[in-house]
Amino acid sequence: MKKSSLIRDKEGWRTVSEEPKYKDKNVEVTMQTVYTPTRQDKPAQWTVCHRKAAVVIAPMTPEGKLILVQQERIPVRALLWEFPAGQIDEEDADDDQTILATAKREMQEETGYELAAGVEMIPLGYFFTSQGFTDEHNHLFLAKGVVPSKAGPSHDENEGITDCREFTLTEFHRMVSENEITNANTLSMYARLCARGLI
Amino acid sequence: MKKSSLIRDKEGWRTVSEEPKYKDKNVEVTMQTVYTPTRQDKPAQWTVCHRKAAVVIAPMTPEGKLILVQQERIPVRALLWEFPAGQIDEEDADDDQTILATAKREMQEETGYELAAGVEMIPLGYFFTSQGFTDEHNHLFLAKGVVPSKAGPSHDENEGITDCREFTLTEFHRMVSENEITNANTLSMYARLCARGLI
Repeated sequence: MKKSSLIRDKEGWRTVSEEPKYKDKNVEVTMQTVYTPTRQDKPAQWTVCHRKAAVVIAPMTPEGKLILVQQERIPVRALLWEFPAGQIDEEDADDDQTILATAKREMQEETGYELAAGVEMIPLGYFFTSQGFTDEHNHLFLAKGVVPSKAGPSHDENEGITDCREFTLTEFHRMVSENEITNANTLSMYARLCARGLI
Repeated sequence: MKKSSLIRDKEGWRTVSEEPKYKDKNVEVTMQTVYTPTRQDKPAQWTVCHRKAAVVIAPMTPEGKLILVQQERIPVRALLWEFPAGQIDEEDADDDQTILATAKREMQEETGYELAAGVEMIPLGYFFTSQGFTDEHNHLFLAKGVVPSKAGPSHDENEGITDCREFTLTEFHRMVSENEITNANTLSMYARLCARGLI
């Protein structure tokens, strides 16, 4: 897998070696030997699980409702309510246009909604899902003004999406508060939306 | 590694097999074959990276400031501002008292602060860091009322903590808004704190 330019040696960081440990289409595990800002005499050794970067989208209707999908998540054996999301499969996962196109496509495929005429995705930065373990990072977008698309949703059978609903902001705030939203994608989006006064 | 009782077969979920792929002290990768609620005829196959559960703590001073540590994070080659956090190493990682004890210890070790007399940790639920990839889940706590401990911080040399500071809520809101806080632990905590009206 190609590495993101976000994850690269810079001031104080120098990669000595990266030993492959396991690889399939979903994950690549390596043992890395790295000089870090505080470890300039003797490099650190660290297990890193490399994953593709992803996008997460908060689709908002003209009435101000947010759209979540319910998805079965095998690693945690549960159905979770989440914002639509998807990995960036293209080789050039750092390119802004590629990231944006992935966000639009994933939203349309998972929810059946698309941006209303004249509306663009609002970028809300990114976040690392588990910075001591993986280089995975997810780009956040607010889609402020979405409408049902003619095509409707087109679920990949591997995705296991079991529901898709509009939620009022009151419902959404309650779900975050009461531990009904339990995934970093949706909670991190909520954080950025709140901090920017967007919800 | 022992699995959490949070991650278990229940209505519609049935594990057929789990084939080991890679294991070290930090991660255990398996190929799982699982019947899911939508896949009752033919089980799904999925790569899962198993990780220990962790705790994340938001230490708040009596003046209402929040304490963050800056830590070097090898997988992402960056220094990140984060709430103190740590994995639950004990065998019984599901036990409430074990989780709470880990939260108190990690806060004290990483920041040098401890709970003020008569104050207890306020549990704020948990979250999954990357639910399509790993069973990792982190328990969130607000430590409302912390004071510098006599012992001070005691950093593990592998942690790479480079700074520890108090931030006003205004500063913290701005850092979340402007993509200076870029990790799921801290953003998910921010989400729960905001949704519950605690900051």
